[in-house]
Amino acid sequence: MNIFNFLGLDAEYEKSRIVFFGAPFDGTTSFRPGTRFAPAAMRGDSFGIETYSPYQDKDLEDANICDGGDLDITAINPKDAIAKIEAFAKAIFQDGKIPVMAGGEHLVSLGAIRAAAEKYPNLHIIHFDAHTDYRHDYLGEKLSHASVMRRAQELLGDGRIFGFGYRSGLKEEFEFAETHCFVNRFTLENIDKARSQIGDAPVYITVDLDVLDPSVFPGTGTPEAGGVSYNELQNALLALRGMNIVAADVCELSPHYDHTGVSTAVACKVLRELLLII
Amino acid sequence: MNIFNFLGLDAEYEKSRIVFFGAPFDGTTSFRPGTRFAPAAMRGDSFGIETYSPYQDKDLEDANICDGGDLDITAINPKDAIAKIEAFAKAIFQDGKIPVMAGGEHLVSLGAIRAAAEKYPNLHIIHFDAHTDYRHDYLGEKLSHASVMRRAQELLGDGRIFGFGYRSGLKEEFEFAETHCFVNRFTLENIDKARSQIGDAPVYITVDLDVLDPSVFPGTGTPEAGGVSYNELQNALLALRGMNIVAADVCELSPHYDHTGVSTAVACKVLRELLLII
Amino acid sequence: MNIFNFLGLDAEYEKSRIVFFGAPFDGTTSFRPGTRFAPAAMRGDSFGIETYSPYQDKDLEDANICDGGDLDITAINPKDAIAKIEAFAKAIFQDGKIPVMAGGEHLVSLGAIRAAAEKYPNLHIIHFDAHTDYRHDYLGEKLSHASVMRRAQELLGDGRIFGFGYRSGLKEEFEFAETHCFVNRFTLENIDKARSQIGDAPVYITVDLDVLDPSVFPGTGTPEAGGVSYNELQNALLALRGMNIVAADVCELSPHYDHTGVSTAVACKVLRELLLII
Amino acid sequence: MNIFNFLGLDAEYEKSRIVFFGAPFDGTTSFRPGTRFAPAAMRGDSFGIETYSPYQDKDLEDANICDGGDLDITAINPKDAIAKIEAFAKAIFQDGKIPVMAGGEHLVSLGAIRAAAEKYPNLHIIHFDAHTDYRHDYLGEKLSHASVMRRAQELLGDGRIFGFGYRSGLKEEFEFAETHCFVNRFTLENIDKARSQIGDAPVYITVDLDVLDPSVFPGTGTPEAGGVSYNELQNALLALRGMNIVAADVCELSPHYDHTGVSTAVACKVLRELLLII
Amino acid sequence: MNIFNFLGLDAEYEKSRIVFFGAPFDGTTSFRPGTRFAPAAMRGDSFGIETYSPYQDKDLEDANICDGGDLDITAINPKDAIAKIEAFAKAIFQDGKIPVMAGGEHLVSLGAIRAAAEKYPNLHIIHFDAHTDYRHDYLGEKLSHASVMRRAQELLGDGRIFGFGYRSGLKEEFEFAETHCFVNRFTLENIDKARSQIGDAPVYITVDLDVLDPSVFPGTGTPEAGGVSYNELQNALLALRGMNIVAADVCELSPHYDHTGVSTAVACKVLRELLLII
Amino acid sequence: MNIFNFLGLDAEYEKSRIVFFGAPFDGTTSFRPGTRFAPAAMRGDSFGIETYSPYQDKDLEDANICDGGDLDITAINPKDAIAKIEAFAKAIFQDGKIPVMAGGEHLVSLGAIRAAAEKYPNLHIIHFDAHTDYRHDYLGEKLSHASVMRRAQELLGDGRIFGFGYRSGLKEEFEFAETHCFVNRFTLENIDKARSQIGDAPVYITVDLDVLDPSVFPGTGTPEAGGVSYNELQNALLALRGMNIVAADVCELSPHYDHTGVSTAVACKVLRELLLII
Repeated sequence: MNIFNFLGLDAEYEKSRIVFFGAPFDGTTSFRPGTRFAPAAMRGDSFGIETYSPYQDKDLEDANICDGGDLDITAINPKDAIAKIEAFAKAIFQDGKIPVMAGGEHLVSLGAIRAAAEKYPNLHIIHFDAHTDYRHDYLGEKLSHASVMRRAQELLGDGRIFGFGYRSGLKEEFEFAETHCFVNRFTLENIDKARSQIGDAPVYITVDLDVLDPSVFPGTGTPEAGGVSYNELQNALLALRGMNIVAADVCELSPHYDHTGVSTAVACKVLRELLLII
Repeated sequence: MNIFNFLGLDAEYEKSRIVFFGAPFDGTTSFRPGTRFAPAAMRGDSFGIETYSPYQDKDLEDANICDGGDLDITAINPKDAIAKIEAFAKAIFQDGKIPVMAGGEHLVSLGAIRAAAEKYPNLHIIHFDAHTDYRHDYLGEKLSHASVMRRAQELLGDGRIFGFGYRSGLKEEFEFAETHCFVNRFTLENIDKARSQIGDAPVYITVDLDVLDPSVFPGTGTPEAGGVSYNELQNALLALRGMNIVAADVCELSPHYDHTGVSTAVACKVLRELLLII
Repeated sequence: MNIFNFLGLDAEYEKSRIVFFGAPFDGTTSFRPGTRFAPAAMRGDSFGIETYSPYQDKDLEDANICDGGDLDITAINPKDAIAKIEAFAKAIFQDGKIPVMAGGEHLVSLGAIRAAAEKYPNLHIIHFDAHTDYRHDYLGEKLSHASVMRRAQELLGDGRIFGFGYRSGLKEEFEFAETHCFVNRFTLENIDKARSQIGDAPVYITVDLDVLDPSVFPGTGTPEAGGVSYNELQNALLALRGMNIVAADVCELSPHYDHTGVSTAVACKVLRELLLII
Repeated sequence: MNIFNFLGLDAEYEKSRIVFFGAPFDGTTSFRPGTRFAPAAMRGDSFGIETYSPYQDKDLEDANICDGGDLDITAINPKDAIAKIEAFAKAIFQDGKIPVMAGGEHLVSLGAIRAAAEKYPNLHIIHFDAHTDYRHDYLGEKLSHASVMRRAQELLGDGRIFGFGYRSGLKEEFEFAETHCFVNRFTLENIDKARSQIGDAPVYITVDLDVLDPSVFPGTGTPEAGGVSYNELQNALLALRGMNIVAADVCELSPHYDHTGVSTAVACKVLRELLLII
Repeated sequence: MNIFNFLGLDAEYEKSRIVFFGAPFDGTTSFRPGTRFAPAAMRGDSFGIETYSPYQDKDLEDANICDGGDLDITAINPKDAIAKIEAFAKAIFQDGKIPVMAGGEHLVSLGAIRAAAEKYPNLHIIHFDAHTDYRHDYLGEKLSHASVMRRAQELLGDGRIFGFGYRSGLKEEFEFAETHCFVNRFTLENIDKARSQIGDAPVYITVDLDVLDPSVFPGTGTPEAGGVSYNELQNALLALRGMNIVAADVCELSPHYDHTGVSTAVACKVLRELLLII
Repeated sequence: MNIFNFLGLDAEYEKSRIVFFGAPFDGTTSFRPGTRFAPAAMRGDSFGIETYSPYQDKDLEDANICDGGDLDITAINPKDAIAKIEAFAKAIFQDGKIPVMAGGEHLVSLGAIRAAAEKYPNLHIIHFDAHTDYRHDYLGEKLSHASVMRRAQELLGDGRIFGFGYRSGLKEEFEFAETHCFVNRFTLENIDKARSQIGDAPVYITVDLDVLDPSVFPGTGTPEAGGVSYNELQNALLALRGMNIVAADVCELSPHYDHTGVSTAVACKVLRELLLII
């Protein structure tokens, strides 16, 4: 058999503490589709980076992480895709493990957030994103990449979501977010403020990689100028070490717009650092 | 205003005999998405070809054709997208005009075929395609690009569909198609046989451009080696001159895989010749 | 009709305060051509950004801006192209409106600057650029992208041009510019100094987008390392709010070198912010 | 575990009749490297084609084929790479199975040919290629992609190699090949003549995919104009049905030059048909 | 010094029979520019093909050919560019040598044709092209790529130009060409007829490479579907062996649209065969 | 003859103070190959930048620099390639000149370092790189791009190598480097500390361009997120002015992954500044 794992994550499921899996769904993408290809691209190009992080002085080979493969959700409707993700994440939670997911478009987070919220009613979310994603609906569709944080807010209530890097959205999205959530526009500053407000509560980290500047991360569906640098994102993630992280995801890599492979390399490194802080 | 038409088709709707429009939908695409960008790309690159066809000694500027713009169906579900296409085509038929559509994925044909079948109960279809598209369903979804001709067959009954160039599909799709339809595998030969069987009956021509060899037409979602040349397709279309063509479409150009622009140029020329034979 | 506007700018000409138009000319480009495709690409990809700017808390939908389409100047000689641009801008000025142009290569600015200088003899220019563009001539040609600011200086005289971000040129170009103009090499600092010197005088803003670092803006003819970030450019533009801006342009996007679409997205956002500060 | 096989070839090794494996080596490539990425690309994009061949009315799902993964030979020297391939193929032969290999550059064939010749002293080779590959050495290196058939000829002797499609080489290579081997220049004609000369003797089929015209197969290191069409190659392969094929390979796909994915799709289909004729 | 020649053409000028040179001008291109980069790209990628032609059993190393470098005409106006080409070709003729030029856009041929017509008043032209290029003017400009053959016809008179492969143009261009020249539409048939009509008269061969189908030659400014195959073009050139060829050119390779390098490889091989038939 | 030099470096060897040459070797590259194409790409695209540096107020045209062309080492084994580089650099040193080399992969530095260490036993190295390159061996191969600094350390001993920007490697590589060398992780800070420690000793500067962030320099084999900006690298180089620089190189540009040409432009500018500080 030809086993093909992210960065050599070859622990067995039973012995693993973290379960990585792919959610290759992009069915509600309104501009440039193709995040369906992200999990496979990340596995393939992870060969180009090391398992050792000099930033954390830790090695993925010492972590107990299993690569659980991809869900078969590419060509199905949003409702079913989210249900499958929720069921898969739920099973991981039930086995006492931590799910870490690679999208797909950002809507896939909703499935994992639902499973996490069921397990941890006091769930908080730290959300990195260029786009607010708080639309009530997109052309009438409530299950949309543009509405995913609105749905999460409805599920969790006020004061649970901490958003960083927002720099695009409707006026009403910004207003909604700033009324019901903690929002740090444009930059990743004040991450410590979020940390102290959340304390020991369970946290879900969702990284829409387009929070990065398009110069750093061109391979995404909706590039939005004016984002943060790689080091800013990495430092923000490192600042979360020691929190009670119960699940995480990285989304919105679109490999067919990543002609140089640089965005995939960035996504792999973000995921490595994220896995090592958990 | 910045009017942006295909090949200078600037007739007014009221005075036009043919109405061209775009159906930028690719929501059921299972492999590489992106046909949503085809109508805009075709308009933009049509600058590179002439309005005059030396093959037919005719000029688009002498035809009464209106560019009706694109339907707003990119980010909606398949059922609604098809309904919108059907309604738009129906209105064109009611005004005594001929709709010619550019997809989008092949599923968009179903909307226009439904409108055509309502207007012309004796509708026949001439279908050029690499893929059979006769699946009963695709992962449970009956409205799928892989099932579009099955749905058309259900609507029209046996003996109405004439398929050319099929070279990929499930064994049962080939069997179904050859039982219920006229099928000329692999090539475009026997087009005259179809012509004589159809006679003066109303005909819908649907061109899935991947019937062309991927060398000729790489910019498509699912390239399938072993297809026909451009000249073979053009000659087949020219052989249909004089038939009772009531509607037509060209589908499955995916511009973001067309790095050289050649596939878009091919699609534009196929569309020009198709418009001129009607 | 298929109306195709930048970011939904659909005001009627008569009611608009600002008239946006494209100048798709690149006839003197000496290295990599293709800026002729910029206005169309910007219109097409403007779908990917919002009309609302969270930086300015303003929305393009609330501004009265008309998209005047493109001038038909691609395949003509430089002298005629500039004359056509000048005439078009002059008409806009005569109607009491503000022209905002998208190039094309930087030479197109000369046409609009001439029209502006005729209307406003006390015209000042704020110029963002990687290249000095002060050559007396380029291979004997005085109407060249490499000489555009020299021609503007000849027209307006000393002390009228305020240049920012220059990092490439002949030694004599730097010397000329620093003798006759205000020059802030390499960075966009001291924008306030320019602002206070200009005061309420009429200002033309010309943004050669290659002032941005090539990491931010690779899709240009002559990438020059060491440029400014997107945020630095945006902040510089925001610092100009409240000035007496009478015309503006953004130039040198070359879409066929913008494989990822990121440069086009950057150009669209620069243009949005620029339109909103006027 | 995330199992990642070519076209769903998921038979267990013990039960399989054919063992497919990848040889991702391109260490002697003199022009454009990158065939090291071919086996992974073929597995990934095989999703886009069907397991059923309408040409042969056979399905890969009915064949007992195992995907044995890739050899770890990318970054080692040619001698060791060939030795590893030889050892792997030898083990497959010893288990009574048929090895089918995907390169890598054409030199990888030498390892498998050596193993085959040991098992079958009367081995014959059918060789499809644009380039003669009969150099005595390349810059002094005898183990080179440009010398692979010379080495095979030395191993097997005269009259054992049947070459088709050769259209590039040194004058002396053509002379050598035509003296010691059966050569059909430029086209794939006379395949039946080869077939009757070989009779029931054991045959190794090696397909350097650059025998195809670059229009059909651009994604290769050294494109050579004037090649055969996909259908010509497929028909030549189908003409070999019923021969005593003991091993086979397809080489020289270079995915990073295959921007459209079309070459990878072609390679997958050639491999599917090749597997089904064995 | 780093000498950089096409395919190792390193004869000294004085001893050479043929002088190859580049004319990197694309100043009148109306759609996609960039042929200015062709001569350099052809020199660079000529490494990938052999100097030996198995079709002609001849080797470039045995021919006395000098690579005369490129003219410095990229950024100047059409009139001056043509004058420089004419002067350079004239000098070569005066030295009793044969000029062979690589464009650049097709307009560059006019300079060399003028020099040839001066030397050989009875000059005939064999013209391979997708586009007729017989416009009286293009937007008022008489020196245009779209008018080059019209200018040549004016210079030489009726019955001197033999055109092959024309498949795009205005109706009046086809009519003009067929009235004043020998035209074989769409294909390269009847080359023998041209040959017998021309007899021993001096011949200029001009190959607009877009006569090839875009599948074969995508890297060109204005791809036009329905062209000839590489082998058809090569066979047509081989059919000209023995004629009194006094000059030749190959035009319209646009390397920046040749992402795979295949078009450049085709152009190199056409040029090799062309050089070997002279 | 068509002379093709970097940025017009056309001094004669005898009169030059610095000799630039290319080392197009990438034979040990483990991930994405192709640095073999870098020297030619840099010569070709150097047209896009000026010879004058406004940062240093110096012009390459005033320096006595010769372009010595490329070594013929692409398709040979690592040992022979390094030996050829060493011999070439040795000859330059013997003529009292300064060699400046463009790779190729980083292993090429070893050849020039050996020649420099022979001439200057007290040689020090300033090393800019994302990767540590201190592996004892890579898959058993001691001559590997991943081991080049380990070999240099063995040759020169402790305290001679000053490394900047390292952000990827095995844990043991970091430990080795920090024990035996001066290492400034992640950034280019403390360059002055290195400068004062080295004093007037002879210095070799080796710039692995992947020290730059992949947003700035995507065109490299192994992009590693989190690197330095162009300005940071340039400032670090400018800080070395006045040191006793005896040789230098820039490595790891891989042009075929540089779709936009931006990485090549960056490499050219780094090389220009490097040449001007020597």
